[in-house]
Amino acid sequence: MTRNRPPVTLLTDFDDFYVAAMRGVVASITDAPVQDIYHKVPPQDVRAAAFILRNVAPYYPDGAVHCVVVDPGVGTERRSLVVEAGDQYLVGPDNGVLVPAARELADEGEVRYYDAPYDDPESHTFHGRDVFAPQAARVAEDGVDAVAGERVEPVTLDSGAPKFETTEDGYEARATIVYVDRFGNAVTNLSGDEVLEVVEYGTTLRVGGRHLPFERTYAAVERGEALALVGSHGNLEFAAREESGADALGLSAGEEVSVAVADRKDTKEN
Amino acid sequence: MTRNRPPVTLLTDFDDFYVAAMRGVVASITDAPVQDIYHKVPPQDVRAAAFILRNVAPYYPDGAVHCVVVDPGVGTERRSLVVEAGDQYLVGPDNGVLVPAARELADEGEVRYYDAPYDDPESHTFHGRDVFAPQAARVAEDGVDAVAGERVEPVTLDSGAPKFETTEDGYEARATIVYVDRFGNAVTNLSGDEVLEVVEYGTTLRVGGRHLPFERTYAAVERGEALALVGSHGNLEFAAREESGADALGLSAGEEVSVAVADRKDTKEN
Amino acid sequence: MTRNRPPVTLLTDFDDFYVAAMRGVVASITDAPVQDIYHKVPPQDVRAAAFILRNVAPYYPDGAVHCVVVDPGVGTERRSLVVEAGDQYLVGPDNGVLVPAARELADEGEVRYYDAPYDDPESHTFHGRDVFAPQAARVAEDGVDAVAGERVEPVTLDSGAPKFETTEDGYEARATIVYVDRFGNAVTNLSGDEVLEVVEYGTTLRVGGRHLPFERTYAAVERGEALALVGSHGNLEFAAREESGADALGLSAGEEVSVAVADRKDTKEN
Repeated sequence: MTRNRPPVTLLTDFDDFYVAAMRGVVASITDAPVQDIYHKVPPQDVRAAAFILRNVAPYYPDGAVHCVVVDPGVGTERRSLVVEAGDQYLVGPDNGVLVPAARELADEGEVRYYDAPYDDPESHTFHGRDVFAPQAARVAEDGVDAVAGERVEPVTLDSGAPKFETTEDGYEARATIVYVDRFGNAVTNLSGDEVLEVVEYGTTLRVGGRHLPFERTYAAVERGEALALVGSHGNLEFAAREESGADALGLSAGEEVSVAVADRKDTKEN
Repeated sequence: MTRNRPPVTLLTDFDDFYVAAMRGVVASITDAPVQDIYHKVPPQDVRAAAFILRNVAPYYPDGAVHCVVVDPGVGTERRSLVVEAGDQYLVGPDNGVLVPAARELADEGEVRYYDAPYDDPESHTFHGRDVFAPQAARVAEDGVDAVAGERVEPVTLDSGAPKFETTEDGYEARATIVYVDRFGNAVTNLSGDEVLEVVEYGTTLRVGGRHLPFERTYAAVERGEALALVGSHGNLEFAAREESGADALGLSAGEEVSVAVADRKDTKEN
Repeated sequence: MTRNRPPVTLLTDFDDFYVAAMRGVVASITDAPVQDIYHKVPPQDVRAAAFILRNVAPYYPDGAVHCVVVDPGVGTERRSLVVEAGDQYLVGPDNGVLVPAARELADEGEVRYYDAPYDDPESHTFHGRDVFAPQAARVAEDGVDAVAGERVEPVTLDSGAPKFETTEDGYEARATIVYVDRFGNAVTNLSGDEVLEVVEYGTTLRVGGRHLPFERTYAAVERGEALALVGSHGNLEFAAREESGADALGLSAGEEVSVAVADRKDTKEN
């Protein structure tokens, strides 16, 4: 059976018809199918887009090209990047948005970042259509060499992945809510592995001023009850069964929250 | 001409980037194109998703695989189903969401429901990505036997399709608003055929306390005027020409409403 | 390499699951891939849909078929059209929605408009699914002759493209805001070329009662500062760097606004 071409995906903060021009540009250059990742990234929220791409790219096939346009720097001198990582390709502005996904797809030493030079097109305001979509389509059609210039060091977002520190009562970390999804699950930047190093399922976490059971699944609590769990992203998240965890706990994206673990004995007394 | 593969479609209540991981999983397993049905099903509203699938599946080609993830039971022991119905395939949780579409696609005796066993994956919270999308893609790529286990009886939603009963004044049925669309059309669970058995176009229906003309098309009334008609779903719906029928009539999804037909003579006196 | 078929695109005001039935219909008739342009056109806003199609169609490949369903006249006697313009095809109601795109894709004399007769299907309320989607798919599969009837003159929207007039102080035009995008960019129907005939970048425009710098890019102003620029559509638009221009300036879609240019000397004194 002939395989279809791996897809060219689009991830933007456009939430408007503008993305259709990018789909048309891709279809004009390559027969690779176009797929949407998401277009409702909060406007110009590079961290949220980086979080999304890191979470979904690992589920795409080899050869997929992901084109990301969340770009507060449009109209300035920032570079365009093309990235080779684990047999997938990433195209977008050099503002850190591609780096977490690249590190998820391949070991650090195996990721190659290239400048992707472009002629400044006549339109100064739509690099998604005039720069990034054509570059992504050419990577899909002709390979990375078709657009790659010199190897470069990318701009990085400070990773901010927090760690637990020992306190008088146990352990504590300062986490940030990086995403609140439609169900009200409040996803933190604290890795599930980090949490599981200091606490077991069934224990209680102190999140802000509140005690939350740390469980393996939603089903461990009653409907409407809040809990902490390691979400499908691999990060600690706060949720409520069949309700909004963010609402129940008063949390919103960007907020810092303290996550504390009393030592086992204290915890059991709670 | 080589035909493309029939599509794998996705219908969820995610309304978020999570669906992109499902698209990637499908693209990793099969070259069948991925199509979206809808991702803004009201959260965990199994009836709304069942209504949507029943309405759109008949327009898809033979071989299409529809993957539905509206699943309040995630994390519990509910089964995954794969369904053969009229040369199309349905994959999703065994909570009744697939049954109305299956019955629409084929005669009851011709529908086959199979358990679709899965290894509980490490992640306990994203069966869409880790269970249902891979199963749907494998059905598209390798056929239903690739995922089907034993034949089973599915869980069903009570159908609730109401019937008219004879009253002193004519006929009356208790209908439920199953969906309000963006235009404000309020779709009931009362079949158009049922209505047409007791009343002709041009007659007046009593909907709650209000009299509505029952017409063949919107164009039969003035702009802004409310009417009852048999929608493209085949169900009775309440609408207003170039306005929101739900707003005009104060109706919302899930609401019960009485639909009464005076006998011909009385109707004409209204 | 075998090329995929050029896409069949869908542009509607449905913003609901109804569009999925159209995707299924297309997939049942042709192996051309289905792409979405946009489904959140303001309900029944023919001008907005015409603006969107004119802006994105030029980025699609030869052979693309664009199916538009924004159709306040559904249920009335209005024609269905199929249009040949610059090696692309447009299908939709004869209400003016296709004309601006056709004129953008080809010189006026090179555009061919055809009646696309249809049997009135049983369902009277969903021409998108039962009339336009099948016609678009047949054009993609069998060519324009498969659905084209007689050549006709299309209904047109009055173009309304305003011109500058000489005033005591310089020049003035009455523009209309035709679209406000998610970023709050307020796009006018005043062409950038028209503006550039009377003013240079770096000058000040008087928009309503307010003075705005007319610049080439967002980066020319500070964060939060409002400006006028020629957007990627080629029209004059009002924006604010990393903020909503429409909010900052109190503008909304459909609004008329005066755009005045003092002569060079006066401008510099502002």
